[in-house]
Amino acid sequence: MKIGVLTSGGDCPGLNAVIRGIVRKGIRTHDASFVGIRDGWRGLLEDDMFDMTMLDVRGLSGRGGTILGTSRTHPYEDGGPERMREVMAAHGIDSLIAIGGEGTLAGASRLVQEEGLHIVGVPKTIDNDLGNTDYTFGFDTAQSIATEAIDRLRTTAESHHRCMVIEVMGRNVGWIALHAGMAAGAHAILMPEFPVSFDQIAEWVTSAKDRGRAPIVVVAEGFVPEGFDSQVADQGVDSRGRVRLGGIANYLAPQIEEITGIESRATILGHLQRGGSPTAYDRVLSTRLGMAAADLAQHGHWGKMASLKGTDIVSVEMSSAVHSLKSVPLHRWEEAQVLFG
Amino acid sequence: MKIGVLTSGGDCPGLNAVIRGIVRKGIRTHDASFVGIRDGWRGLLEDDMFDMTMLDVRGLSGRGGTILGTSRTHPYEDGGPERMREVMAAHGIDSLIAIGGEGTLAGASRLVQEEGLHIVGVPKTIDNDLGNTDYTFGFDTAQSIATEAIDRLRTTAESHHRCMVIEVMGRNVGWIALHAGMAAGAHAILMPEFPVSFDQIAEWVTSAKDRGRAPIVVVAEGFVPEGFDSQVADQGVDSRGRVRLGGIANYLAPQIEEITGIESRATILGHLQRGGSPTAYDRVLSTRLGMAAADLAQHGHWGKMASLKGTDIVSVEMSSAVHSLKSVPLHRWEEAQVLFG
Amino acid sequence: MKIGVLTSGGDCPGLNAVIRGIVRKGIRTHDASFVGIRDGWRGLLEDDMFDMTMLDVRGLSGRGGTILGTSRTHPYEDGGPERMREVMAAHGIDSLIAIGGEGTLAGASRLVQEEGLHIVGVPKTIDNDLGNTDYTFGFDTAQSIATEAIDRLRTTAESHHRCMVIEVMGRNVGWIALHAGMAAGAHAILMPEFPVSFDQIAEWVTSAKDRGRAPIVVVAEGFVPEGFDSQVADQGVDSRGRVRLGGIANYLAPQIEEITGIESRATILGHLQRGGSPTAYDRVLSTRLGMAAADLAQHGHWGKMASLKGTDIVSVEMSSAVHSLKSVPLHRWEEAQVLFG
Amino acid sequence: MKIGVLTSGGDCPGLNAVIRGIVRKGIRTHDASFVGIRDGWRGLLEDDMFDMTMLDVRGLSGRGGTILGTSRTHPYEDGGPERMREVMAAHGIDSLIAIGGEGTLAGASRLVQEEGLHIVGVPKTIDNDLGNTDYTFGFDTAQSIATEAIDRLRTTAESHHRCMVIEVMGRNVGWIALHAGMAAGAHAILMPEFPVSFDQIAEWVTSAKDRGRAPIVVVAEGFVPEGFDSQVADQGVDSRGRVRLGGIANYLAPQIEEITGIESRATILGHLQRGGSPTAYDRVLSTRLGMAAADLAQHGHWGKMASLKGTDIVSVEMSSAVHSLKSVPLHRWEEAQVLFG
Repeated sequence: MKIGVLTSGGDCPGLNAVIRGIVRKGIRTHDASFVGIRDGWRGLLEDDMFDMTMLDVRGLSGRGGTILGTSRTHPYEDGGPERMREVMAAHGIDSLIAIGGEGTLAGASRLVQEEGLHIVGVPKTIDNDLGNTDYTFGFDTAQSIATEAIDRLRTTAESHHRCMVIEVMGRNVGWIALHAGMAAGAHAILMPEFPVSFDQIAEWVTSAKDRGRAPIVVVAEGFVPEGFDSQVADQGVDSRGRVRLGGIANYLAPQIEEITGIESRATILGHLQRGGSPTAYDRVLSTRLGMAAADLAQHGHWGKMASLKGTDIVSVEMSSAVHSLKSVPLHRWEEAQVLFG
Repeated sequence: MKIGVLTSGGDCPGLNAVIRGIVRKGIRTHDASFVGIRDGWRGLLEDDMFDMTMLDVRGLSGRGGTILGTSRTHPYEDGGPERMREVMAAHGIDSLIAIGGEGTLAGASRLVQEEGLHIVGVPKTIDNDLGNTDYTFGFDTAQSIATEAIDRLRTTAESHHRCMVIEVMGRNVGWIALHAGMAAGAHAILMPEFPVSFDQIAEWVTSAKDRGRAPIVVVAEGFVPEGFDSQVADQGVDSRGRVRLGGIANYLAPQIEEITGIESRATILGHLQRGGSPTAYDRVLSTRLGMAAADLAQHGHWGKMASLKGTDIVSVEMSSAVHSLKSVPLHRWEEAQVLFG
Repeated sequence: MKIGVLTSGGDCPGLNAVIRGIVRKGIRTHDASFVGIRDGWRGLLEDDMFDMTMLDVRGLSGRGGTILGTSRTHPYEDGGPERMREVMAAHGIDSLIAIGGEGTLAGASRLVQEEGLHIVGVPKTIDNDLGNTDYTFGFDTAQSIATEAIDRLRTTAESHHRCMVIEVMGRNVGWIALHAGMAAGAHAILMPEFPVSFDQIAEWVTSAKDRGRAPIVVVAEGFVPEGFDSQVADQGVDSRGRVRLGGIANYLAPQIEEITGIESRATILGHLQRGGSPTAYDRVLSTRLGMAAADLAQHGHWGKMASLKGTDIVSVEMSSAVHSLKSVPLHRWEEAQVLFG
Repeated sequence: MKIGVLTSGGDCPGLNAVIRGIVRKGIRTHDASFVGIRDGWRGLLEDDMFDMTMLDVRGLSGRGGTILGTSRTHPYEDGGPERMREVMAAHGIDSLIAIGGEGTLAGASRLVQEEGLHIVGVPKTIDNDLGNTDYTFGFDTAQSIATEAIDRLRTTAESHHRCMVIEVMGRNVGWIALHAGMAAGAHAILMPEFPVSFDQIAEWVTSAKDRGRAPIVVVAEGFVPEGFDSQVADQGVDSRGRVRLGGIANYLAPQIEEITGIESRATILGHLQRGGSPTAYDRVLSTRLGMAAADLAQHGHWGKMASLKGTDIVSVEMSSAVHSLKSVPLHRWEEAQVLFG
């Protein structure tokens, strides 16, 4: 069996460990051979690939990024399924393992169902917003980096008696904000799922200040304050209602300063959160997901993906991961609020 | 309600975050008050305690160790239940939250069942060997420290073309060895649950060397090689059959060197693995466990402990955590072996 | 002898270690006593201070920020020298140790020369731009944080085949950019001292890309591209000619993308660089500077400050540190260019 | 010009950055070409080498270990100078850059003086014990790792009210112990240069304990307590009088426990201190030393080595580095003692 492997969408710490897990398991247990496809669907559509051996994946478990490269090319662009079949046939590729997020898994699922292509998946989202999987790799690394950054910012905030507003990733969900905020002892955590008013934010900030703390506000990039739209007609929001200009933190900090009178500063962590060596947790999860994906391909479970449930790696429908966004549930929001102010 | 809190047994990263979670949840939601008991059961038996307020727990989520101190004093020593009742009555303490390992939870469970004391628990084991909970706090920090150490040791091993034998914690189970070994790309992982022979170890080491690698062997402190006892009559093993003198790594390294001819060095990580600031993962888990324990006490669920199941914190019988050791299951051992050699 | 200690200006990793060094040396060797003055000159002018003992400084060597707090209050505001003398007399304070940057040292020097106040100094600048001292504490921590951040960003840049523009601190000098850039293998380092044209930057970026690298550009916040002013009449520069809106990195990244056709992203490290626990290097330097400052005060060397020369802590005139900015010399710029492109 | 590069002796963080600095400077500025010699003098004597290009050194600045490998082979073994000349002639190698410690530099210096070979050097010692250079690369990384380890161990020591004895590198000098001990707030620092009695150690430990601290003792591996020899006739010391069996920390901890009655634990950091990615400080220093060595070779300054003086890289005689060990001077010992107890 000859299997093509591709990584698609935004990069994520652990991708290389997934690739290594796939290749080692496939070669050692199933006698499979592998082709590394460059830059996601682009490499498949443009026939840009290479034979991938044990040597290519050695020493990869702790390395950030993806040796395969990635892109946001859509599988139905540039010839789409037709072209894929051609390229796969030309190389004798029987099946694909697609490592990607919502778009990739939805596309792959459709390619299996409508075109009969042989594809299994590994879910990838640093935001942890895919359904039917407990956590996804990369999320632990992102929450760790964000936590360490907030720890650092707290000391400078305290020295200057300032409020710090730290923007973390999370376009549609607040998982990174929730976890990093809880881990680092934030006085307010703002998430897309739970809009709150400026007055509420100001109350939390003032309460922390009154107890002698330098207020720490952690905000997910996709958060939109309650009653926001009307106020910033002149600032612009994007099609999903998200603040565009320079990040929500840059918008919130001066607002907080104005309402509370407390000097406030913004920091946007941005790409830092997806770079560098994955945590031990993510390396183990990634390796196990990769090995499970090799098994799925070996057993012809097309349309399935490897998924974490409790302490086990199980197999679920790719389509089930994308049907609904995994939001932060209400009870986690209530739990977190006990720590606010 | 006035609740006493104690931490007992070996310290563990996340203890302070548990304490903070308990106090904040109890005060803010349940209007409880708290007493910090010093050094585990010792403080209760010797009446060494202090009123613990929000101020005492501020800024604790990222701090290693335990502000309460800990000891290995047994609850049935020095007066035992009788004396506890006295001291609790004198201070108006209604109930206890005991954060501890196998011994603590077994003792607490017995105090509930036989003596009718009001106790709830939080499971603590850096080795991750308690039953009826997916993971325990501190384990993620330990596996992270061990992984980072192995990453470091690999570079020096490769420069000198040596084999490195790294001993990690795990008296009875191999969880830290398994995870850190997988995360750091070890060529052999040795665990108490799965004795292997010197020949097998030598084969993995030689195979890695033949592929041009500096062989990395990760061994849990409780590992005993197959056919070991007879060979080291003169070295001594302890009552559980574990190697005593200076750590199993110090025993294995020269053996590996002798059999394989590859220069080998031992490193014992020891106390390093339980020190310092907890990871983001452990801080979130600890905070949530602490908050759940405050709820258990509020609702009078004596004999129960907070426990992680999947992504949820649930409540289980304390006694269920100690009935059987949570060993590394066979399928995880088989999974890991794909990466060996 | 009763000595007042204050920290002034932007905070800097190592301030707490300086304070600890002062207090331990002064109490143990000179039998001095100490007063901690809150928030720099503000605390002195407003009589906001506390007796500072061994207990106050315990465990401080590794803690970021300053326990004394800091502010940008100028010593000649609000009553100035007159008021200082009053407050010092009221508390029986004989002399001051002022830990601060250019403004603080210049002010302190003037207070010594014109007013006869008893002040010694410790130079503080995270940018490393003070004269007559080899390095200043905080700089090593800043270069370490920046280097680690660039290491992280490189992996995501490589996965996406992007150019990364990372903005680090350095309003007037490029020391952090120079060192972090060299340490992390940047393909271009842009510093205020050495303006270069967009074409030169584009050439370095393209050259790196042509060799298969994801181009890394490290830019000091105070860098202004050659021929810049006329081009951005509508964007605004501040009084010193520095780019105002959102950081120079946010300006450069789209420019680079436009000229080279290589997708480019900006990251601004900002406050992250001055937060958190100082490096071992900075802790040792800070401790030694603090101890030397206590000696200077003991011996009545008013107007002097402790300074690093080679491996020694020596004493120099405070005024000498501020007479001229310590810029990156030409030979360091030439040395660095060997690594560009 | 064709230059052979070798790394010899124990590995050290920064070796790869030196190699990268040499190659980039030599190729870009001097149009030199390079040969990488494997495993120090062994590779030269056994003709084991490869053409080393820009591609071989790319991305190396942050990588631990040495891509050239290293060994303790002596240059006068196995044919010695005669054989070297042969191999160099066969490959057209004009000159050598030897990166190594006392033995390597002494050997290289002799090869220049007695045999007329063309060699320049780069000093390498993680212990920082070479003369005529302010600091050597690797030392900062070692002190950082040791400091971080002590920070970690402190939290567990405090939880258990224990004394921690931490053994760091330093066979003949105490630089790592001195710096890591000062940085991490040790209550006693023990160095080969300054033997102290058990009673003195016990006094420092007891004093720290009496102030409510968990006593931290940092000891260099080469430390020998005053009056030691007679007491341990049965334990064995090596030819230099150093404690052999399992490290001095393992000897001291039970002694301290016996004298003071304070529970004590030992940790030996060992190889951890020389592994992994170098600090920013070491990367910059290494890169600059490498570039300077390429210049020395270009200008035919045989017998010279690159050396750090203040903030400059200068050139000194290799022989001057080895004439006398750079010990910790008395005034640094006195300075440190202010922090003890």
